[in-house]
Amino acid sequence: MAQIIADRRDIDFVLYEQLDTEDLTRFPKYSEFNRKLFDMTISEARNFGIKEILPTFSQGDRDGVRLEAGKVFVSESFRKPHRLYVEGEWIAMKDDPAVGGQGLPHIVAQAASEYLVGANFAFTAFGTLGHGAGKLVELYGTAEQRDLYLRHLYSGKWGGTMLLTESGAGSDLGALTTTATKNPDGTYSIAGSKIFITNGDQNLTENIIHPVLARIEGAPKGAKGISLFIVPKIWVNDDGSFGDFNDVVCTGVEEKLGLHGSPTCSLTLGAKGKCRGVLLGEENKGMQVMFHMMNEARLDVGAQGFTHGSAAYLYALNYARERHQGKDITAGADSPQVPIIRHPDVRRMLIQMKAYTEGMRSFIYYVSRCFDMEACASTAEEKNYYAQMTELLTPVVKAYCSERGFDVCTLAVQVYGGYGFTREYPVEQLLRDCKITSIYEGTNGIQAMDLLGRKLMMKKGAVFQSLISEMESTVLRAAAIPGLADMAEAVKAAISGLNEIAAHIAKAVMSDRVRAAFAASHPFLEIMGDVIMGWMLLWRASVAAPKLEKIAENASGEALEAIIENNRQAAFYDGQLKTAAYFIYALLPITAGKIQALKKSRDEVIQISEKSFGGL
Amino acid sequence: MAQIIADRRDIDFVLYEQLDTEDLTRFPKYSEFNRKLFDMTISEARNFGIKEILPTFSQGDRDGVRLEAGKVFVSESFRKPHRLYVEGEWIAMKDDPAVGGQGLPHIVAQAASEYLVGANFAFTAFGTLGHGAGKLVELYGTAEQRDLYLRHLYSGKWGGTMLLTESGAGSDLGALTTTATKNPDGTYSIAGSKIFITNGDQNLTENIIHPVLARIEGAPKGAKGISLFIVPKIWVNDDGSFGDFNDVVCTGVEEKLGLHGSPTCSLTLGAKGKCRGVLLGEENKGMQVMFHMMNEARLDVGAQGFTHGSAAYLYALNYARERHQGKDITAGADSPQVPIIRHPDVRRMLIQMKAYTEGMRSFIYYVSRCFDMEACASTAEEKNYYAQMTELLTPVVKAYCSERGFDVCTLAVQVYGGYGFTREYPVEQLLRDCKITSIYEGTNGIQAMDLLGRKLMMKKGAVFQSLISEMESTVLRAAAIPGLADMAEAVKAAISGLNEIAAHIAKAVMSDRVRAAFAASHPFLEIMGDVIMGWMLLWRASVAAPKLEKIAENASGEALEAIIENNRQAAFYDGQLKTAAYFIYALLPITAGKIQALKKSRDEVIQISEKSFGGL
Repeated sequence: MAQIIADRRDIDFVLYEQLDTEDLTRFPKYSEFNRKLFDMTISEARNFGIKEILPTFSQGDRDGVRLEAGKVFVSESFRKPHRLYVEGEWIAMKDDPAVGGQGLPHIVAQAASEYLVGANFAFTAFGTLGHGAGKLVELYGTAEQRDLYLRHLYSGKWGGTMLLTESGAGSDLGALTTTATKNPDGTYSIAGSKIFITNGDQNLTENIIHPVLARIEGAPKGAKGISLFIVPKIWVNDDGSFGDFNDVVCTGVEEKLGLHGSPTCSLTLGAKGKCRGVLLGEENKGMQVMFHMMNEARLDVGAQGFTHGSAAYLYALNYARERHQGKDITAGADSPQVPIIRHPDVRRMLIQMKAYTEGMRSFIYYVSRCFDMEACASTAEEKNYYAQMTELLTPVVKAYCSERGFDVCTLAVQVYGGYGFTREYPVEQLLRDCKITSIYEGTNGIQAMDLLGRKLMMKKGAVFQSLISEMESTVLRAAAIPGLADMAEAVKAAISGLNEIAAHIAKAVMSDRVRAAFAASHPFLEIMGDVIMGWMLLWRASVAAPKLEKIAENASGEALEAIIENNRQAAFYDGQLKTAAYFIYALLPITAGKIQALKKSRDEVIQISEKSFGGL
Repeated sequence: MAQIIADRRDIDFVLYEQLDTEDLTRFPKYSEFNRKLFDMTISEARNFGIKEILPTFSQGDRDGVRLEAGKVFVSESFRKPHRLYVEGEWIAMKDDPAVGGQGLPHIVAQAASEYLVGANFAFTAFGTLGHGAGKLVELYGTAEQRDLYLRHLYSGKWGGTMLLTESGAGSDLGALTTTATKNPDGTYSIAGSKIFITNGDQNLTENIIHPVLARIEGAPKGAKGISLFIVPKIWVNDDGSFGDFNDVVCTGVEEKLGLHGSPTCSLTLGAKGKCRGVLLGEENKGMQVMFHMMNEARLDVGAQGFTHGSAAYLYALNYARERHQGKDITAGADSPQVPIIRHPDVRRMLIQMKAYTEGMRSFIYYVSRCFDMEACASTAEEKNYYAQMTELLTPVVKAYCSERGFDVCTLAVQVYGGYGFTREYPVEQLLRDCKITSIYEGTNGIQAMDLLGRKLMMKKGAVFQSLISEMESTVLRAAAIPGLADMAEAVKAAISGLNEIAAHIAKAVMSDRVRAAFAASHPFLEIMGDVIMGWMLLWRASVAAPKLEKIAENASGEALEAIIENNRQAAFYDGQLKTAAYFIYALLPITAGKIQALKKSRDEVIQISEKSFGGL
């Protein structure tokens, strides 16, 4: 049967053949797990995702959300799966069992969550945002705060949010104006208005915990004077019982391009002067705390973009196999219609979607594995290595995967032709839903600035150089495998190109050409993402080639083409080789062009007068 | 005041400074016009578009369409502007006065229509589809048919459609199954079902004329056995009076990603055995006739994609000038928030949008001018030259402008940030509405096949070579202008690259590597479009440079930067230079990468087994 949402064979390939996930179980942290348990978790996620969540995908989109008297009502189709979502403990898969988690490796949780997020992100967001709020409480809360909130946030019984953005403070959080005033009982009175709050109100969970950025009176200006507060929708007494409703009112919900099932709220806090919150962490340290949450959220958003692409690819692939239209281009006029997957341009779109989808899967799982290795590392040095690698790669995961995910959705619409433009098929909604990923949790422009301004020069560039070394060792291994030398050579050249252009731009950042350098930040991030795709696909090919060879050896004498047609494993491995070759020969030269462009481009982006943009 | 929809200064630049539109008035065909009349038409279109049509943009999207008992009701907001649209004779701007047209040059009509289409394509489509049906009647109808239908179609009093697609015959029209049986009175009884019919039914016009592709009983198989019929919604008697309603029923309207205001209908013809039509043109020659219509429609669709991009660019530009967020990247922490147009990455997005928008404007106007030159040409040879140039460029206009238009809309959403994802601003709708342009009137894959399979080798490649020569003469002229030599050199290299890769692929088409060649058809079309953008932007720069120099000379001694800040014309011309330089140095090297990719790419797209795509 055709697979949907995510290709399980490919997931297994990345988990067990590309990245040795079973190996994690030799560490004390994951010693109670084994491959069977990992596989069961993923299979359950798949069943749950397809059976319970997927039916809410289109339903939730059609129902949208309803705001009545300051309260938000979400699609009733969410209610049953949400109960199962809570019961199944899906939300805290990778958290410590001590705080209610399942303690799974990040990489396995990532694999499982492909099926949940891919089935309907508007639905799973209720859980993941609650989890994000819980993570703040776990890391920065007092023991009492953890006792009060954590269990319910990690189970999904309560929801959570992030109250950052204000109408005058979007990307520039330091400009926010929400105030906090200390009360005699140690709580704070909060007053202000927040916008773009995902799940800011909803009727699915018992309570909602709002982490709120606000400025304590008299605090320093800008980002240094911002503190973080917990503002529950319903006050939670010290014994865990509910008190009164807090003074938080939803004043509006956005009508949006996509994610119609997920309410995006404007919230007013303290309109009656009665909004109460408690400080989380230290005064004026709110931004650091929030950045922790945002970094995790950024990886999640990159994964979200990728997951939409993965689902869109499989829908389009299944459609292309089933839809008969047009004759084979080399066949005569009287020949029958063929499935559109036979048409060269449709194949081109599909292999491009496959290359990006699989490259992104490997990339994201690799970063998940870095988290696991950090958790398992025995020395501080090793821990740091993985932690810093994650930091370096976070903006690339977020920005690159959100954009390529959107591109894959766009191609999926194209493969469907006219049907792709209709709501009869799921791809138009994937395209709409996916678009937000390049915007929220820091626009991709912000990610590119983060990469160039903070990450590239971490430890004087040593972290970036570690990445280059990781890539180069893959190239070395691949070069030794029969048939892969050419591809390895091409990827090696791309890595050198990335390294050169990184040095070129880093120099500009530190010179007086800062503005011009930052005009290159997004193109640079794209180049880095492209080269990482090349790396990951070459890595895949280097795993697949020997396995294909072995199958061929065992099928003594049979032609390779016949083996591929008749042996599913052979078809899979050959697909890895062909996809890598496609990316490396047909797309990576374009990346070389992008590198040339950054070298050649002058400062027009900066020099052009604001008046010269026209339209006046 | 900020401009919207289209930049009038830029329109005037293309019309009168890049392409000598006034010169057209020296030909008899346009001798009754002058620049003042052209300008008046465009200004009126602008006023009408902004004042009357633009308010329907978001309203029509929200209202959508309603199907009741086989009849379709469209947004009531369309009614008044439609009356004015008919009264103002906007629909047949470029048609012969003898048939009710205004007789304007295509290029001027194109300029005017930017403001109409850009204001709301879902609205203007009612007119343009009627016009398309009228064009068929004008060219292929009998004198009686012209008398009966033409006036009402060209005025917009009646609407029109194109009944081509069936559920099993989309891109492959030859597979259609609708039948036509000749009646004793010379009419035909039509029976079949058609889908994806834009404006297939609506309550805005008095009548609707459906051109219908059908197969006369006993006709040859495939495309050679298809005839074209006129099927009016309400029968038109020989004296022009209305007869009965025809047996055409709307059985469904699509729910779509965009263009909600425009009904996309499924129509059943002859369910009661009473659908009557009359033959248009000759039996079994329906496809040729329809191709004529489709070619015009393809240019319109390319222009539609471009126009969405143009509108999106101006909205984003205005927003970027007004929205204050974040500090200047080189300023201290205490500095004030600046308009986001100051941020390097926002500028990068804007200049990229500008480059594509203006490049597409020049390209589309250039093709319009080819129509005008064809109409004015005194020799058959000259006529052919322009007609064939148009044929060659049609698939590029359609596919390239639809995709770049969508890209510009996507960037516009990104410039708006979170607001871009909401319906509060127009850009998300432009993105949704624009998406169809890469799909209908022949998917872009079909366009790429048309370019490679039919157009590139027209007259053994001589037409393509004429285009190369046109481009090279621009380069020659530019190279002689102080300051433009480097840019000219770069564009020259790009043209050579295009020419080489065209030869490379043409060879493959004619070898046994046909499938591989067609896998490169869309990338080739992209390369051709990119190089055309470079050509057009260099051309613009070569017009702007001497004019900027002259302004500078007259402002003796003042620094160029100050001149640009204080003189609107100088700002405009310098914008042309900077935009061309940006495109040529920062984007054209990527095109060189695409050319390299086509040279290096092997046949993975074709070789990969269908099973190896995964998902099974």
